[in-house]
Amino acid sequence: MELVSCGDEETTITRLNPHVREMTSDILYHLALGSGSHDLHAMFGDVKFVCMGGTPRRMEQFAHFIMKEIGYQLPTGAQLLDISLHSYRYSMFKVGPVLSVSHGMGMPSVGILLHEMIKLMYHARVKNPTFFRLGTCGGIGIDGGNLVITESAVDGLMNPYLEQAILGEIQKRPGLLDPELAAELKALSTPEDPWQIYSGKTMCTTDFYEGQGRLDGAFCDYTEEDKFDFLRKIHAEGIINMEMESLMFAALCHHAGIRGAVICVTLLNRMKGDQVTAEKSQQMEWQEYPQRLVARYIRQQLEAADGVGSGAGGLIRSLSQLHLTRQTSEQFASSE
Amino acid sequence: MELVSCGDEETTITRLNPHVREMTSDILYHLALGSGSHDLHAMFGDVKFVCMGGTPRRMEQFAHFIMKEIGYQLPTGAQLLDISLHSYRYSMFKVGPVLSVSHGMGMPSVGILLHEMIKLMYHARVKNPTFFRLGTCGGIGIDGGNLVITESAVDGLMNPYLEQAILGEIQKRPGLLDPELAAELKALSTPEDPWQIYSGKTMCTTDFYEGQGRLDGAFCDYTEEDKFDFLRKIHAEGIINMEMESLMFAALCHHAGIRGAVICVTLLNRMKGDQVTAEKSQQMEWQEYPQRLVARYIRQQLEAADGVGSGAGGLIRSLSQLHLTRQTSEQFASSE
Repeated sequence: MELVSCGDEETTITRLNPHVREMTSDILYHLALGSGSHDLHAMFGDVKFVCMGGTPRRMEQFAHFIMKEIGYQLPTGAQLLDISLHSYRYSMFKVGPVLSVSHGMGMPSVGILLHEMIKLMYHARVKNPTFFRLGTCGGIGIDGGNLVITESAVDGLMNPYLEQAILGEIQKRPGLLDPELAAELKALSTPEDPWQIYSGKTMCTTDFYEGQGRLDGAFCDYTEEDKFDFLRKIHAEGIINMEMESLMFAALCHHAGIRGAVICVTLLNRMKGDQVTAEKSQQMEWQEYPQRLVARYIRQQLEAADGVGSGAGGLIRSLSQLHLTRQTSEQFASSE
Repeated sequence: MELVSCGDEETTITRLNPHVREMTSDILYHLALGSGSHDLHAMFGDVKFVCMGGTPRRMEQFAHFIMKEIGYQLPTGAQLLDISLHSYRYSMFKVGPVLSVSHGMGMPSVGILLHEMIKLMYHARVKNPTFFRLGTCGGIGIDGGNLVITESAVDGLMNPYLEQAILGEIQKRPGLLDPELAAELKALSTPEDPWQIYSGKTMCTTDFYEGQGRLDGAFCDYTEEDKFDFLRKIHAEGIINMEMESLMFAALCHHAGIRGAVICVTLLNRMKGDQVTAEKSQQMEWQEYPQRLVARYIRQQLEAADGVGSGAGGLIRSLSQLHLTRQTSEQFASSE
């Protein structure tokens, strides 16, 4: 079967399913979109960044946050719409060149989304998009409230690839992420930030409790000592955090030739406990950390591409002036 | 490590994690509940049936539907509340003895929920609950709009067990469901129903596209002939439908000694195609079929246990009279 290479004129996606090109109508079932029902090029042709994260709420917050950060304005009287509302599966928001999409929990859920987002990029004729997962994780030797950028992802057995059963046979896909993108993101962190930033290997599991060696699941046939032996063992092999989506994300981005990065905030240090005991308000603040880092990256990229105008729909003349205006306005409002 | 047997006075859950008994506060993180923060016995002690399904919306609809079916009434001026709203992960509704909970997509998502629901049953001191998954699936040789009751679940390689990596080692748990419960459910179907009802083996996959041999994913390295060879092969081995949650559901219910059943409606016949092309309104009607069957079962069980009074909070004297009253009232309203 012929593979579509990076040099293809029509798309930059590698290994794209050749059947998709022949379909007169491709229903992106879980996004409530279709190539026959929607003009996907007109709707999504300007997308450059696809940001994914667990919950609809968090990704709606990110949409509002990135709107401010890149100075994007909706037409007067318009508000953000959940584009995939009618799927009842994922939520998707579009802020100019940025898509903000929820992916649910676990690899199968993020896998379905990625299949459909990759096809969406093809139908929309988006070239060289960048995909991000903004998530939460357990730190291994890293306290809560810090950032981890995944260099590569492994499964619960330390295999550096995704095992996927296809037509009754296991296919292996490497859990690799773009090293340049990871380095660029890490370089955007400053000493003034409230977090420390780390990069390393992420263990991606299929379960939150027994799969991550927790003592507080419905079942637990091992002791606390067994658990710490396991955590120390994987830490010695370079694992610095655990979550449940990175391996599928890395494997499918790599397979499609899409630059991808996984940035997670630690909610706890698994070397110290299993239950997430940080206050909700503290957790909510921490969950903004990956968003803040990715927003810096997107803003930098748009500015480098002289994208302020295009990102802002042509209404914003200067991002720094815009921020000054907003700041002044808020000060005025609060001093009334 | 001591296992908690079925004969335990405190709980009917088998193999319950012994650590859970010792915890002064157990946070059910993804449900936004905790044994230290909530009186879980007072809140959930009367639960007998836990119904799970993919989307929050479908499970909210089921909550309203089962409320009518069992004649349950909320106090005047009260409405249903999403108990797990603040988790932003799952949605949970309680209608007397029935919990209706969304589980998201894929085995990891339903696995997290099951760990926490099983612990919830323990903390609430619920004995012998019955768990249902009400879902959608692709039929293998069965057209859209029919019901499949899973007898047992297999993975994408036809293994009749769940493989779970725990502390770096694979544990195997059989994908078995309660045969009596399956037979009781099947017997509740009548010739007047708009569906045919089938029981057999379900293949549970970790991906919707390549994992189920679809030709319409982002990637596809096989031909239509390969796909049909695969579908025919698994059909010959007894597989009559495919979905993405049954194996985790079956394995964890079986491990916990909880009666469990998986009832799915087919959205299409995979022997004929890959894309779900049924109209949305048609799909919505089909998605009610598993709900209607499970509601019959719950109503029968409550009536057999003289549970009408308890199910209805003591306000309803007769279910048949209630239905007559509502019917008359609706006729009156529509003839105005």
